Amino acid sequence: MWPGPGARGASAARPGRGPATLPDMASESPPRAYRRLSVEERRRQLLAAALELFAHRAPEEISLDDVAETAGVSRPLVYRYFPGGKQQLYEAALRSAADELERCFAEPPGGPFTERLGRVLNRYLAFVDEHDTGFGALLQSGSVVATSRTGAIVDGVRRAAVEHVLRGLGVTGPGARLRMAVRMWISSVEAASLIWLDEGKEPSRDELRDWLVEQFVAGLLATAGRDGQTAGVVREVLAAEDSGGSVGGLLRRVLPLVGEAAHLR
Amino acid sequence: MWPGPGARGASAARPGRGPATLPDMASESPPRAYRRLSVEERRRQLLAAALELFAHRAPEEISLDDVAETAGVSRPLVYRYFPGGKQQLYEAALRSAADELERCFAEPPGGPFTERLGRVLNRYLAFVDEHDTGFGALLQSGSVVATSRTGAIVDGVRRAAVEHVLRGLGVTGPGARLRMAVRMWISSVEAASLIWLDEGKEPSRDELRDWLVEQFVAGLLATAGRDGQTAGVVREVLAAEDSGGSVGGLLRRVLPLVGEAAHLR
Repeated sequence: MWPGPGARGASAARPGRGPATLPDMASESPPRAYRRLSVEERRRQLLAAALELFAHRAPEEISLDDVAETAGVSRPLVYRYFPGGKQQLYEAALRSAADELERCFAEPPGGPFTERLGRVLNRYLAFVDEHDTGFGALLQSGSVVATSRTGAIVDGVRRAAVEHVLRGLGVTGPGARLRMAVRMWISSVEAASLIWLDEGKEPSRDELRDWLVEQFVAGLLATAGRDGQTAGVVREVLAAEDSGGSVGGLLRRVLPLVGEAAHLR
Repeated sequence: MWPGPGARGASAARPGRGPATLPDMASESPPRAYRRLSVEERRRQLLAAALELFAHRAPEEISLDDVAETAGVSRPLVYRYFPGGKQQLYEAALRSAADELERCFAEPPGGPFTERLGRVLNRYLAFVDEHDTGFGALLQSGSVVATSRTGAIVDGVRRAAVEHVLRGLGVTGPGARLRMAVRMWISSVEAASLIWLDEGKEPSRDELRDWLVEQFVAGLLATAGRDGQTAGVVREVLAAEDSGGSVGGLLRRVLPLVGEAAHLR
């Protein structure tokens, strides 16, 4: 997902080996040749190396030496781009990952809502799958690199997710209740992602996706019972659903169970 | 909720004024008299003062001077009990709050599950209400006092909450799916609590409680459609419900909405 060399493909990702021109080359053994990269390309390369590392190990286990080695550059070069050291690099990598994650949320309108939500979750779960350890570490409180700034980046992603879901529902002026319901679901998806990583990625990504969509529908239905705006949204969502879609399947499996409890109606 | 003197009742909470015996008295003006407290009583008094402060201000805004002043003691005395300074005091106060919170979860068996869950949520929301700022700060990543130890304390409370809910459902060997569903709900309750504090404690505590119970039922129903164990649990929960209870009300409000979408069945 990230451009540039990573731990698993460092040599393949440096195709254009040019002359050794950087002052920090002298300290390396064996000497390596660099392609001349623009400042922006170099920055992206270092961020990609950092993300590769942060994806699979906890931030506290990673040093700037590791980042330099993964990117195939010297440690002074890493410091030249990120003079604030590991914390600055981590925050920049996090910002880059957050942007990538937010791009997952975009989904053109049209068609049943649950299908669109399923496609967003496909991309989101692929991201979680790829960045597993880093994703987990990021959301753990007490990480050594967690600051109010990293917290703000993570909160920004959450807010973007909420806005995308509300827009996907066709809601322009969400009331407090509907917004709270969406935020609760986003939070439960985050929890499910961490549990999923903890449990060796069981169940399968597809099964988790379908279940998360159903959890959203169930939560929305429960909220519709207490909130007129949400009831209106539910009517539109249900009207656009195919009989073979997510909501139809959910109702066919759950309504018989509810029907058994005849004393409750 | 916390024993001992707090900012709002400091003088009333020091009824037995004894002779001034502590060495740090000399530095105070006007001179105060201390009751002789046992080590354990003194420790509790300081934790209570710390919790009182942490409840209403962010940890980074609180100094040991504030804690000393709130408890009506000298700063050296606070350091004598918590030589690790603010971090140690914060962790001890957090541990004490976590114990209190875990006691909220205990609920004797018997009667409809949703009524028991509602009583637990009553106590939990009262706790959130009382400790508002501190509760919020605790759950924000990047707090200056957040460490892996404070993270572990918070995670311990989450785990206890999950176990209590599973026990309340009468489940002894929960499968992965049912456990994940409960963890997702706990997470969404946490999110709802923070939003509730953010939004000036709207809706009312009772309304929020009822809605959270319904969200739990809805999530459990959706999970029952995919998991045999959860379906069995749902049958028992529904069988124990009164017609006028939480599930009955939810079904009466939501089923008509579902009934409108005849093409989905």
